[in-house]
Amino acid sequence: MIPAHLRTEDTIAAIATPPGPGAIGVIKISGPEAEGILRRVFRPARPREHFESHRLYYGHIVDPESGEPVDEVLVALMRAPRSYTREDVLEIYAHSGYRVLTRILELVLRAGARPAEPGEFTRRAFLNGRLDLAQAEAVEEIIHARSDQALRLALRHLSGGLSERIQALRDRILDLLAVTEVAVDFPEEDVEILSPEEMRRRLSEEVLPEIRRLLASAEEGRVFREGIAVVLAGRPNVGKSSLLNALLREERAIVTPVPGTTRDVIEETAQIAGLPVRLIDTAGLREAADEVESIGVRKAREKLAAADVVVFLVDGSQSPTEEDQRLYEEVRSRPHVVAVNKIDIAPAENLSLWRRQFHQTPVFISAKEGRGLEELSRRIFEVAVGHGPAEPPEIAPNLRQKAALERAKKALERALRLLDQPAPLPELLAVELREALSALSEITGEVTTEDLLDRIFSSFCIGK
Amino acid sequence: MIPAHLRTEDTIAAIATPPGPGAIGVIKISGPEAEGILRRVFRPARPREHFESHRLYYGHIVDPESGEPVDEVLVALMRAPRSYTREDVLEIYAHSGYRVLTRILELVLRAGARPAEPGEFTRRAFLNGRLDLAQAEAVEEIIHARSDQALRLALRHLSGGLSERIQALRDRILDLLAVTEVAVDFPEEDVEILSPEEMRRRLSEEVLPEIRRLLASAEEGRVFREGIAVVLAGRPNVGKSSLLNALLREERAIVTPVPGTTRDVIEETAQIAGLPVRLIDTAGLREAADEVESIGVRKAREKLAAADVVVFLVDGSQSPTEEDQRLYEEVRSRPHVVAVNKIDIAPAENLSLWRRQFHQTPVFISAKEGRGLEELSRRIFEVAVGHGPAEPPEIAPNLRQKAALERAKKALERALRLLDQPAPLPELLAVELREALSALSEITGEVTTEDLLDRIFSSFCIGK
Repeated sequence: MIPAHLRTEDTIAAIATPPGPGAIGVIKISGPEAEGILRRVFRPARPREHFESHRLYYGHIVDPESGEPVDEVLVALMRAPRSYTREDVLEIYAHSGYRVLTRILELVLRAGARPAEPGEFTRRAFLNGRLDLAQAEAVEEIIHARSDQALRLALRHLSGGLSERIQALRDRILDLLAVTEVAVDFPEEDVEILSPEEMRRRLSEEVLPEIRRLLASAEEGRVFREGIAVVLAGRPNVGKSSLLNALLREERAIVTPVPGTTRDVIEETAQIAGLPVRLIDTAGLREAADEVESIGVRKAREKLAAADVVVFLVDGSQSPTEEDQRLYEEVRSRPHVVAVNKIDIAPAENLSLWRRQFHQTPVFISAKEGRGLEELSRRIFEVAVGHGPAEPPEIAPNLRQKAALERAKKALERALRLLDQPAPLPELLAVELREALSALSEITGEVTTEDLLDRIFSSFCIGK
Repeated sequence: MIPAHLRTEDTIAAIATPPGPGAIGVIKISGPEAEGILRRVFRPARPREHFESHRLYYGHIVDPESGEPVDEVLVALMRAPRSYTREDVLEIYAHSGYRVLTRILELVLRAGARPAEPGEFTRRAFLNGRLDLAQAEAVEEIIHARSDQALRLALRHLSGGLSERIQALRDRILDLLAVTEVAVDFPEEDVEILSPEEMRRRLSEEVLPEIRRLLASAEEGRVFREGIAVVLAGRPNVGKSSLLNALLREERAIVTPVPGTTRDVIEETAQIAGLPVRLIDTAGLREAADEVESIGVRKAREKLAAADVVVFLVDGSQSPTEEDQRLYEEVRSRPHVVAVNKIDIAPAENLSLWRRQFHQTPVFISAKEGRGLEELSRRIFEVAVGHGPAEPPEIAPNLRQKAALERAKKALERALRLLDQPAPLPELLAVELREALSALSEITGEVTTEDLLDRIFSSFCIGK
């Protein structure tokens, strides 16, 4: 029997918006029954024979058995192939409430759909050739992007930036494989076969450097995509939580007019200079004064150890204390930025004392008044991305893609070693080139196994 | 200065879907700038001069300053007055991720909108005459409906079921007020004035009974809308959590193919025979055997006291024990249903023992095999709604509406008392009739104050 996720001739449905109460909830349906379901469960405000593609119709979802209305909705039918999956797609824009959405979904299922598995819409988009695999993965990157830079990377992947470069690499390797296979098939003839030297040159000067660049950008991109952990350290009452709130407020103010609305989503995440940042307060470090071996201290140390950047905060309105010094000793071996807080109330002589206190010039800030935060963000960014590029790479392969690139690289390096030998056997060479090609093809999905597809799409949201 | 929520000439925007990662996130924009914003932030896949109303266009949201794409989206413009607010409305169907949605919202705000306050879209729909106030409240009822019956009620309210009946009441009172005012203005003349007896008859036979019916249906509707608390009690290992899961599973299975997907939303809520039900397990009652005054017992007793229905569960595979009997004593004064579990493994002689054990005939079930659950649900429903109607009332005023009905009722009762006196003063009568009218008008919003609108709409979701 064909597994459900391979039967693309049936019709799938899912709630495509996050769960929770809200103004709009969307139910998405894809497959040949989309229009039939529309006709069965939707009663347009004005009766109509024909539904145009890509047009919004206002009306009610109605239980076909009882004739009872279930919600006031807009619907749109997107006929194949002009849709996300390249199948007929129906979207129902309803109210977002648990019961109203599940009730509509029930009616849709009864009218001829089955529940979609996670990622199944995107899987169909892939199977129907609308997206390659790298682009399909970019869809999830967009959803989970936690910063502008991460979003930018994801968009480039979605528009095929990575796929194009992989394609170019494959073309080059295919050229080499073609001539190698001529040598396998016609060992006696000497027609148009590249010399081992020329093949060597192309591999080492054209193909491998590009693979290395892609691998390097996977590394560079990681910080932009996955973000960094910034730990706030310093003794009590220097203003750590004020700073945390000030950094969070910066971006919250714009988008959440009502406090708390999307609070739990971003509670820990802010962005600093376009980087996704997890801000972590170390209240724990305070206990250091009392019990050196306490759990609090151990936890704080663990946090410090996991930090990509530590912001060490001191109170500018006071003179340096021994405790500041002792805590700084814990921090200074880590990548860090020193910030002198409360400059709004700090006497000038204090600030010059603080200026000479550390191995680096501190940033002077007032968390309360929001002063110096931009400079602090810039410094955090510098420490986080080192002297690397201030901008993320054009594209950045993810872990799966990186693993495939590594496989291709190893195969090509083995090919190079074969070419180092006198009279390399074209058969052996062909094996390595094919291995490299197959690895690269996995990135865009030209060659895939069911396992690979299951692995990729099962991590998707339902409804995507 | 005019408060922001009254300036309907400006353009408002909000994220209209619940926060969280998901396939689709919607940004909603309403106001005169909707089309201008569309032109500024949206780049259609194929360039176009004109955007038709109610048509989906595919393309990218683009930062107008950098030209950089932000997401791949569908958009739809719904031109006034064919929209939810009767203003120009733009909806952007993007991916649902925190960063991607806030980024788009930022661009939309920069392009000429301001963030919407909670309920502001619906407030505009009300101010522009698309919905009356009772219908506007029904929108929130739909979103928060936790059962089919609650949803049904909300839909009837949205389609104007309540408003029509209020309107009919107002018409009748207006008739009476009209003749009363003639009597005030022309005290000497005797033209076409109703006799006090006829006015009395109409008030007591036509107007007041309808108000009392509406008040009664507010009471009846409450249980269908707000649901009931069902507490599962019984000694350990009789299968309380199996039963809880079995009752939850009934409805979960259909809509969540992947376990846990919408788990937190319905964790505590199921529906039984169309009623929204909070299912509460009382592990606490077990400790009763050991320490009578323990916290566990106190908590369990609190839960029992708050229950609308207690399901008392016993293990049919065993004979009745003293502990069963003692626990039952705690339960029997509460509205309850007795269920004998594990009938799949219970010997017949046990079952007949259990049958005679209680003041009511128990329901025989197997939580494991899902047997008897329908009968159990029916019994829970019976106990919950008593001998009241098995169906919810046609409509059910909410608390605010009920309070207004009470005010109207009191005013009309005062009017009746005036009519009981010899030669009632028409001036006094008019005061009471006007008070009744004004109270009823508040329900549909014909007469409103800013305060009232603020109170109603501030409880709405943002984006609605």
